[in-house]
Amino acid sequence: MRENQQLLSHQHDDRVRNVKLVLQYDGTDFHGWQIQPGLATIQGTLTRAIFRITGESAQVHGSGRTDAGVHALAQVCNFCIGSTIPLVNLQKALNSLLPPSIRILQAEEASRAFHARRDAVQKHYCYRILTSKWCSPFDYRFVFHHPKPLDFLAMSEAAIRVVGEHDFSSFCDSSAQVESRVRCVASSFFVFDSKRDLIEYNVCANGFLHHMVRNFVGTFLEVGRGRVAVSTIEAILNAKDRSIAGPTAPAKGLFLVSVSY
Amino acid sequence: MRENQQLLSHQHDDRVRNVKLVLQYDGTDFHGWQIQPGLATIQGTLTRAIFRITGESAQVHGSGRTDAGVHALAQVCNFCIGSTIPLVNLQKALNSLLPPSIRILQAEEASRAFHARRDAVQKHYCYRILTSKWCSPFDYRFVFHHPKPLDFLAMSEAAIRVVGEHDFSSFCDSSAQVESRVRCVASSFFVFDSKRDLIEYNVCANGFLHHMVRNFVGTFLEVGRGRVAVSTIEAILNAKDRSIAGPTAPAKGLFLVSVSY
Repeated sequence: MRENQQLLSHQHDDRVRNVKLVLQYDGTDFHGWQIQPGLATIQGTLTRAIFRITGESAQVHGSGRTDAGVHALAQVCNFCIGSTIPLVNLQKALNSLLPPSIRILQAEEASRAFHARRDAVQKHYCYRILTSKWCSPFDYRFVFHHPKPLDFLAMSEAAIRVVGEHDFSSFCDSSAQVESRVRCVASSFFVFDSKRDLIEYNVCANGFLHHMVRNFVGTFLEVGRGRVAVSTIEAILNAKDRSIAGPTAPAKGLFLVSVSY
Repeated sequence: MRENQQLLSHQHDDRVRNVKLVLQYDGTDFHGWQIQPGLATIQGTLTRAIFRITGESAQVHGSGRTDAGVHALAQVCNFCIGSTIPLVNLQKALNSLLPPSIRILQAEEASRAFHARRDAVQKHYCYRILTSKWCSPFDYRFVFHHPKPLDFLAMSEAAIRVVGEHDFSSFCDSSAQVESRVRCVASSFFVFDSKRDLIEYNVCANGFLHHMVRNFVGTFLEVGRGRVAVSTIEAILNAKDRSIAGPTAPAKGLFLVSVSY
């Protein structure tokens, strides 16, 4: 409510600009996107940096929350400010104030109506699984290390089964409070890079429920281990019961790749 | 002296094995290779892990010291232990005790006479310079970020000038106490990856003086910025004076790639 009031009051003020940022982050050392008192978060760190530059307490809207430990290649957010600082200078100032684990890739003025969360039409996530015996010191922050054989074909077949419009209650954190758990998955597939022993899961949808990608991956891993049959995926979807699907895969392998508007 | 005594006493003991390890590390959070009281170092962390597994205070010999913040793709070390633990188990135990920023890639029994430092015949180092405007959150630990144009051709020409047997006093930390500052550089060249805006300097030599690679790079960067002429490299070498060459490039871009025996 307060958020809407601020947006509305800004919409009536011609001097206010709606700034859209595209940003990357290594989520390892953050407690996720959303501001939490006393904890390092992406939204909190960004809000403080904007305040230090403009003197304004901006309300930063992300395209969605990422959990603690989840990374982003191109997260999108927006906020309204009265400051007239050129956006190329704002980007430069943000990148010099922010820790190197957060980088602003783009800063541009958006239309007054633009809202990073409400206007997102599709999101792309990627989950990285490393199957080599040892995980390199240069990779361990950015993969889930699973040094045991996985049935890649079975996982690929399972991944296809979640494509389409479904009620994804079985893959949604049961405590999540949302109006509808129906989402439309546009694509869902695995890519195997045998040179690097790396399995990458890619999924695009019009929206994601809490833990949805990590619960997909946790379930597909059970398929890859031979513990769950590919044909079970349909029954898991139909059950609309979180306890039927596999466990939540670790956060460190997950990347928000892009958001489309 | 104590080190030699221990080695000698071990050489007379048939039950003792000489273990050779190949290891990778992200040097960011370590104060270099060499043990220092109260500080996290690679040698210290490894020595403690060996003690926890075998109960033995092994003397770990690295192929050479890496400075604080310098990384290794394949550092080599050796140590003598009486423990009969199979080396495949030792490797597994070490990798589960060590932080994920250090990984043991190989553990094998070496001949009694093998010494990781004295027997090294060539080392390969790589230095990574990123020239893109912004440095990604996934790269910043592993490159020197230099977001300004560099004359790649001039740097390449300068790099060739240090090939061969020379007294490298101009590129050696002036406080270093060594018998001879003559080393033989077998190859020295830059590779430019335009897709990633990444310049990689590769250098192989029969040995390296303290800060030698970073002083090479610091000097070549001065050439790339147009501040030092390519033709000056010979004069810098001949001066045998550290103050004549360029500054020491930051540690974070440097990787020990391999050691040959």
